[in-house]
Amino acid sequence: MSRLFERVAFIGIGLIGSSLARVMIRDGLAGEIVACARTQATLDKVKDLKLAGRVTRDPAEAAKGADLVVIATHLSAYAEIGGRIADHLRRGAVVTDVGSVKQAVIRDLKPLLPSGVHLVPGHPVAGTEFSGPEHGFAEMFRDRWCILTPIAGTDAKAVARVKAMWESAGMKVATMDPAHHDLVLAITSHLPHLIAYTIVGTATDLEDTLKSEVIKFSAGGFRDFTRIAASDPIFWRDVFLANREAVLAMLQRFTEDLTAMQRAIRYGEGDKLQAAFTRTRAIRKSIVDAKQA
Amino acid sequence: MSRLFERVAFIGIGLIGSSLARVMIRDGLAGEIVACARTQATLDKVKDLKLAGRVTRDPAEAAKGADLVVIATHLSAYAEIGGRIADHLRRGAVVTDVGSVKQAVIRDLKPLLPSGVHLVPGHPVAGTEFSGPEHGFAEMFRDRWCILTPIAGTDAKAVARVKAMWESAGMKVATMDPAHHDLVLAITSHLPHLIAYTIVGTATDLEDTLKSEVIKFSAGGFRDFTRIAASDPIFWRDVFLANREAVLAMLQRFTEDLTAMQRAIRYGEGDKLQAAFTRTRAIRKSIVDAKQA
Repeated sequence: MSRLFERVAFIGIGLIGSSLARVMIRDGLAGEIVACARTQATLDKVKDLKLAGRVTRDPAEAAKGADLVVIATHLSAYAEIGGRIADHLRRGAVVTDVGSVKQAVIRDLKPLLPSGVHLVPGHPVAGTEFSGPEHGFAEMFRDRWCILTPIAGTDAKAVARVKAMWESAGMKVATMDPAHHDLVLAITSHLPHLIAYTIVGTATDLEDTLKSEVIKFSAGGFRDFTRIAASDPIFWRDVFLANREAVLAMLQRFTEDLTAMQRAIRYGEGDKLQAAFTRTRAIRKSIVDAKQA
Repeated sequence: MSRLFERVAFIGIGLIGSSLARVMIRDGLAGEIVACARTQATLDKVKDLKLAGRVTRDPAEAAKGADLVVIATHLSAYAEIGGRIADHLRRGAVVTDVGSVKQAVIRDLKPLLPSGVHLVPGHPVAGTEFSGPEHGFAEMFRDRWCILTPIAGTDAKAVARVKAMWESAGMKVATMDPAHHDLVLAITSHLPHLIAYTIVGTATDLEDTLKSEVIKFSAGGFRDFTRIAASDPIFWRDVFLANREAVLAMLQRFTEDLTAMQRAIRYGEGDKLQAAFTRTRAIRKSIVDAKQA
């Protein structure tokens, strides 16, 4: 892959940002990388890991002169970052992000960016339960999907450059309406995380004798939920606040379905349970067939 | 490990039973293995896999003369099996099982077994989402827990032999009150499976355009649920029917907690969400520390 950008600024460089920086370095996508983080501790890690040529705690300084700005912070920081970088962006610069919600990102950033700057919102659907630049790795994105949600009229060349960047990371790239993205992710990602956090919380509230045994005998299914529920709390707080309507809509469907299951168990309706458990196998098969398992 | 039993009868020999048979063969625990299954297809597989010296579709024939009978069928078959083998059991024989619910097993089997036969209910907490003897493997049990729930007054030697068998499989063995077992498993295994089945069902009911994207973008958390929800439907139907009270009790706690989360999202209570998501990390850490991750 040849160079795509002269100067790339990462505003926020944790698990996802640092993984993308590793791809850029590996593939020579960027002439120069500047990293911005809130804490000196993160910047020290970034320097130790040799992920950026320059580091700074000032988003404006990082963004100045960059032809690509990658916002990779928690969602709740976007509006402030947009405000701080707006006046320092080069004409023709591309601003992208890696956030898990897209309507809120457009709402927060678009009005702040000067004309001549191209906003290309993006969401690489990949990650682990760990946080921080030391846990990133270039292979994280391989064979996963990246969803871009540019609004109508966005410069096609800007979109193409962001697409080429994620393809270099090994991702398949899809383009989608932002509202549709938020609905799809509400069911595939946000609701599963909410449920996992909730059931692990329910277990945490059990009497101490029971709780120690929950840990001991977690192999029966629970431990998969605890892995999911070990994800970054602030990241997920922001996702649920930013994607409230879609999450509440999907949660409503889920609780209706769970109530029906509960009723079937209470009244011993084995046929209903068996039928419900049988049809879900088909979805698993589709996921295995689609090589997303 | 030296020989523990002269003749072992497996009544049911699917994922778990066949894995245990593999351990017995590997470690020389049994002088002879007889396997009983409902279908000729399963028996043919067992013969091809060389898991038993003799095979039969008649539980009574399998149990005759065995000093260990391992019941490893779906839970709903136990009562009938108990009735069919009762008159054919050798005095001093040990009857054990691998079922995921223990009070119901004791209720179904104990009254049927003649005196002089030792019931040692057991539950190896291990498995995969696959079914059938062809998917078993001896290493499935390694470093996992097996829970035995013998009722008061059970012959200590019989319990010790079953314990030695599971230890040979690499399991850590705990002894527990049957009611306590059913409560612990309700939260660590049964409820997670119910929830996984439910959310995958919710996704199955989505409009077709949305559904195809759920499969495509499942990497965000959903695919972990689909793996769990691909488990054997009859197995799980039986678990929920057999452990109804404990599952409903835990489900009630879970839905209360989920409703609290829903309310926090609706009213934008970020602090509450963040606090809830933070405390669940501690449980994950305990599981990793306990080497059950």
